[in-house]
Amino acid sequence: MSNIFLVFSTPYSHKAIVINPALQIKTMIKVGIAGASGYTGLELLRLLIKHPEVTITAITSEKYQGQKLADIFPSFGGFSDLKFSPLSSGIAGECDILFLALPHTTAMNQVPAFLNGDCRVIDLSADYRLKSQETFQQWYSVPHEQKETLDQAVYGLPELHRDSIQSAKLVANPGCYPTSVLLAVLPLIATDWVDLDSIIADCKSGVSGAGRKAVINTQFAECNEAVSAYGLGTHRHTPEIEQEISALKGRTIKVTFSPHLMPMTRGMLSTVYLNLKKDLALEKLDKHYREYYKNEPFVRLLNLGTFANTHTVQASNYCDIGLAVDARAGRVIITSAIDNLVKGAAGQAIQNMNIMLGLDEKTALDSPGIFP
Amino acid sequence: MSNIFLVFSTPYSHKAIVINPALQIKTMIKVGIAGASGYTGLELLRLLIKHPEVTITAITSEKYQGQKLADIFPSFGGFSDLKFSPLSSGIAGECDILFLALPHTTAMNQVPAFLNGDCRVIDLSADYRLKSQETFQQWYSVPHEQKETLDQAVYGLPELHRDSIQSAKLVANPGCYPTSVLLAVLPLIATDWVDLDSIIADCKSGVSGAGRKAVINTQFAECNEAVSAYGLGTHRHTPEIEQEISALKGRTIKVTFSPHLMPMTRGMLSTVYLNLKKDLALEKLDKHYREYYKNEPFVRLLNLGTFANTHTVQASNYCDIGLAVDARAGRVIITSAIDNLVKGAAGQAIQNMNIMLGLDEKTALDSPGIFP
Amino acid sequence: MSNIFLVFSTPYSHKAIVINPALQIKTMIKVGIAGASGYTGLELLRLLIKHPEVTITAITSEKYQGQKLADIFPSFGGFSDLKFSPLSSGIAGECDILFLALPHTTAMNQVPAFLNGDCRVIDLSADYRLKSQETFQQWYSVPHEQKETLDQAVYGLPELHRDSIQSAKLVANPGCYPTSVLLAVLPLIATDWVDLDSIIADCKSGVSGAGRKAVINTQFAECNEAVSAYGLGTHRHTPEIEQEISALKGRTIKVTFSPHLMPMTRGMLSTVYLNLKKDLALEKLDKHYREYYKNEPFVRLLNLGTFANTHTVQASNYCDIGLAVDARAGRVIITSAIDNLVKGAAGQAIQNMNIMLGLDEKTALDSPGIFP
Amino acid sequence: MSNIFLVFSTPYSHKAIVINPALQIKTMIKVGIAGASGYTGLELLRLLIKHPEVTITAITSEKYQGQKLADIFPSFGGFSDLKFSPLSSGIAGECDILFLALPHTTAMNQVPAFLNGDCRVIDLSADYRLKSQETFQQWYSVPHEQKETLDQAVYGLPELHRDSIQSAKLVANPGCYPTSVLLAVLPLIATDWVDLDSIIADCKSGVSGAGRKAVINTQFAECNEAVSAYGLGTHRHTPEIEQEISALKGRTIKVTFSPHLMPMTRGMLSTVYLNLKKDLALEKLDKHYREYYKNEPFVRLLNLGTFANTHTVQASNYCDIGLAVDARAGRVIITSAIDNLVKGAAGQAIQNMNIMLGLDEKTALDSPGIFP
Repeated sequence: MSNIFLVFSTPYSHKAIVINPALQIKTMIKVGIAGASGYTGLELLRLLIKHPEVTITAITSEKYQGQKLADIFPSFGGFSDLKFSPLSSGIAGECDILFLALPHTTAMNQVPAFLNGDCRVIDLSADYRLKSQETFQQWYSVPHEQKETLDQAVYGLPELHRDSIQSAKLVANPGCYPTSVLLAVLPLIATDWVDLDSIIADCKSGVSGAGRKAVINTQFAECNEAVSAYGLGTHRHTPEIEQEISALKGRTIKVTFSPHLMPMTRGMLSTVYLNLKKDLALEKLDKHYREYYKNEPFVRLLNLGTFANTHTVQASNYCDIGLAVDARAGRVIITSAIDNLVKGAAGQAIQNMNIMLGLDEKTALDSPGIFP
Repeated sequence: MSNIFLVFSTPYSHKAIVINPALQIKTMIKVGIAGASGYTGLELLRLLIKHPEVTITAITSEKYQGQKLADIFPSFGGFSDLKFSPLSSGIAGECDILFLALPHTTAMNQVPAFLNGDCRVIDLSADYRLKSQETFQQWYSVPHEQKETLDQAVYGLPELHRDSIQSAKLVANPGCYPTSVLLAVLPLIATDWVDLDSIIADCKSGVSGAGRKAVINTQFAECNEAVSAYGLGTHRHTPEIEQEISALKGRTIKVTFSPHLMPMTRGMLSTVYLNLKKDLALEKLDKHYREYYKNEPFVRLLNLGTFANTHTVQASNYCDIGLAVDARAGRVIITSAIDNLVKGAAGQAIQNMNIMLGLDEKTALDSPGIFP
Repeated sequence: MSNIFLVFSTPYSHKAIVINPALQIKTMIKVGIAGASGYTGLELLRLLIKHPEVTITAITSEKYQGQKLADIFPSFGGFSDLKFSPLSSGIAGECDILFLALPHTTAMNQVPAFLNGDCRVIDLSADYRLKSQETFQQWYSVPHEQKETLDQAVYGLPELHRDSIQSAKLVANPGCYPTSVLLAVLPLIATDWVDLDSIIADCKSGVSGAGRKAVINTQFAECNEAVSAYGLGTHRHTPEIEQEISALKGRTIKVTFSPHLMPMTRGMLSTVYLNLKKDLALEKLDKHYREYYKNEPFVRLLNLGTFANTHTVQASNYCDIGLAVDARAGRVIITSAIDNLVKGAAGQAIQNMNIMLGLDEKTALDSPGIFP
Repeated sequence: MSNIFLVFSTPYSHKAIVINPALQIKTMIKVGIAGASGYTGLELLRLLIKHPEVTITAITSEKYQGQKLADIFPSFGGFSDLKFSPLSSGIAGECDILFLALPHTTAMNQVPAFLNGDCRVIDLSADYRLKSQETFQQWYSVPHEQKETLDQAVYGLPELHRDSIQSAKLVANPGCYPTSVLLAVLPLIATDWVDLDSIIADCKSGVSGAGRKAVINTQFAECNEAVSAYGLGTHRHTPEIEQEISALKGRTIKVTFSPHLMPMTRGMLSTVYLNLKKDLALEKLDKHYREYYKNEPFVRLLNLGTFANTHTVQASNYCDIGLAVDARAGRVIITSAIDNLVKGAAGQAIQNMNIMLGLDEKTALDSPGIFP
């Protein structure tokens, strides 16, 4: 409404936001969300409904097909008349951008078909994150049979692959844990300050990260007043973290990654440990991180002496980073906090969409977190 | 940015949003927030920072004076360079709208001075909510000595007093409990279906309603895993509820109001009981409520058979209402859910500001709640 | 161990705790728990494991059959080598007391067979709580075909039916909501102070009350930060409350009962409203309640001015009651707090067992709650 | 009552539980609790009230002096008529065992006087945990002036110092973090499997660990839905961990210790990382831990593949340990869970008392945790 006379230029020409000068009508981006009734899908909806350049044309849910979004999820009352439909192969035809917020391997083999047209895909599952078919099969226990499409896919961490994301047809949106761990360690990889073979990432996640499924383990009375470790040394986000760090460093890096479940809905805190190879002043580390991230719209360095807290990024797309040097023991400790559903999933996917479309990267994402 | 060419007309002329046609620069509304470091103040900040017509010129906090907002509250990192200052009498001179988010009686006697100029005041404390000085003294144990100013004040429930709010110099923003109870019962007052002397409001509030204070009662380990009743029959929000219902009905109505504390941060659920004077079909009740609220932007009627849930209004300005008729026992049960910090405080205050300024009432407020 | 020389006499002779004077060996009560892997079953286990007169001979679970209790629920590590077995008709033969902690209607038709021997049954489901087959069918939508057994069943609220419980073969353990509501209103029923047709019970329950089931509604991310109303005017505990009050009063009493779900694991708060028929001093009300409950081991009257809080009864068998008189509006407000899994289920069942066996009623139950 | 005829022999003769054969009356142990209104003090009360050999003779609280325990903390209603008194130098004269549950340095200089008689002291503060006065001053910023008493003090981790505890006059009860970390790593210290200079302890604590104080940081609305790191590399429990490991190993070991705050009341999870010096099979590690702890009453090894969860030790004195070998990265990961108020404070203090008095170490402590 208030954006009528704006004109955007985008580097990806066939998806530019074109204004018809005669009609003064802006062409809205058509987006679809496959798997819109999961927590990630709902978060995409919450954010995209307020995105000024986007119109949501299709939302899918097998479980709720035929039902209205606002009838099942009253928080959308007054915002949308959308109805859930089952996932069909035709969905790509209705969309400029298709978000896949489906369980891993659900839509893996449909992606090539979705891409066979003008539609660009942002996949929030793990299906196209690992470059190696072998590694995928090893960690996900199913073969990956879409080699060609996999080669096309761009790992959608904007702080690392912004340029490739811009022109990508298929973006593999990173996992929540890899997002928080990679943003914590990226600035260290090119330095000679730390031993990259010593990386230990102790990560704490809210329960929404497990998705919207009826299972015993994530029942309220099981998770409440409970902090627990799970998947130590075996979690599937491990190869994702290692892939990106290894690629940057040019050699294989192994990481110890330990996920934990926290009694809260949203939020992820990663505490990452690295051994120092030499003395390092905290101020120097801090300066380096600020320099490294100075142009990043969604990474914030906390004041010295302050460590990451999931509370300050709740419901926002920010990643807050706090630094410590444990000089006594010769280690650096990097803490990073994100909202697992926003920067760890839906928000980052929209950030990727904005980049792909040549929009301001912050569109629909630059709100402060909810505090308290 | 994208709103540059808009022109608004407002019914309250000296505060109209004037566009200088020569400079093409919009005059932003200058707002101040006294008591900005409390939960209500922080919520005003969160919402006003995204308000397209507003610039925040002053925030006060005795405790944090001289410190930067974002240093104390990192969720605002990247959004504001504001510093806290102590509350001074001059603040009104810097503002078109001054929000008072202070503890009760803190600024009561300064309000006349604040109003002595162009500044309009929205007071989120209880100081100007009760029309009767006697009632105020009776419930708040201090005399009210600003009779003249009190007479000027408008009780800021838009669903009830929108017209008066528009031209008010001083708006007394309603309490969270009264907001949720009044929105639940308003549609019934003019009917002859219920006995208005039978109103019982059983209300459940999140802990943030107690404010940001270091006290034992609201320590995490005291409130967590705890549901408790407090202030039964004696809570200060009682006369506020009674005042508005009595005024509408034209006679004194007494209400039983029972607040309860819930182990959650945000949210307020009111369950209101009224005895039926005659048989009443749920469908008829539902139709009546939908008709009554059909033009209200922030009141939503839930589907029949669905009752209010604080989760669906979290961090939003909506009030969700769910209805029941207990035909067996001859009662109606109205459930209403709000976020105590939004529709119960800061959001409603901004809704009032929007009305006062002739802006679209939903500006900066029309986002869906956070779910999950 | 330290109880070797004790001799108990019990009024129910064939279940007396007999000490063999020659062998100096105490005969332990053999108990079985059908449905031991639900929250109520687990709570029975937690308490019975520490009961000095009891040995647990059988625990059933269809889901975990063949598996060790401590392997599935590590909190029992070191306490028991019990394995889950499927529920079989022979279980009654192994037990002196059989607890049925099964979903409603699961074992309803097996109860007569269980009772056909020396075994006495405490049924924690709703199957034998309602005296009227018609009322049962109306609220549970299945016919009740065990008229004879139903007639035998005693409603196991010790504060009301202690004498009958003592000699009962079958005890129908009350629902959690009815327990908390009845304990709140019992002392008023014989008075002429209140209008018994005005009873409104607004009840707040922790999520564990919904049982240990994999369903969406009680997932952590759905219930956390959420307070909601459900089953208004239609919850199945309504006829249970009405049955007991009506029986005491000698006429049909209808009650408005409103359950709510709270974001906590354990605990239930009931706020019960009754209209006063005459002026009533709070001190008089308080004195009356203290007199009424003076011999009750598990009902505590809070100090005047203090209201019930679920936190102070957490993991204990106590019911805390706090009183208010809303003289302005002419009502009394009774608040009662229990732990829904203890006094609202497993603890009360053990209290009933103790009574049935002529043991000290408090055995294994007289621990203070967990605070914080 | 049921324990009348028992006779105990204790290795510490002047505190033996003497039975007067003429009167058949057992002499109860007299215990005092200084600082009984804090969370640690309350937990001591909860457990000691059920201890069959103990009578509580004095509880102190400056804040609540003159008031009844049960009036301030209703969970003790019916259990005790104790009143709080201020801390006086005479308290030791009334007690056989005096628990000090006071803030650090509060009673440090009174301890020598308390010990000047028959009274034995269990200090739950940090005052006598560090053997070195220099280290104490360095981490607590106050000088330690009680060298002689410090030399007498025994670090009260029963799994490490049971023999010394038995005859100690003064036991310094370990911190909650050191308890959970030490129990996780003790079995590894004498092996040649790991590099002890690589210890990283990432610890997660419930909020009750911060004590019962009115401060902003631990307000419900600040901590709820928040996971945060604090005190990285600087927390005062660091030297305590290092002292014990170094003493065992015979050389200085530095540890990286990172505390985190979790949105729950009770519970502490420690995830401890050590680099492997050689390949190690998980089964071998598991067997070693089981052997090491086979006689420990309160340490439980979880099944292989299961990791520690604070939920399974809630309100109990158990420490649950779960093991992992990250063979890919060459590390072991030890997870341990305790209730910070029980094994992390009050329960361990009572375990120490039981040892000091020659009682069964499990007395009053062998209850399963609360689940759910």
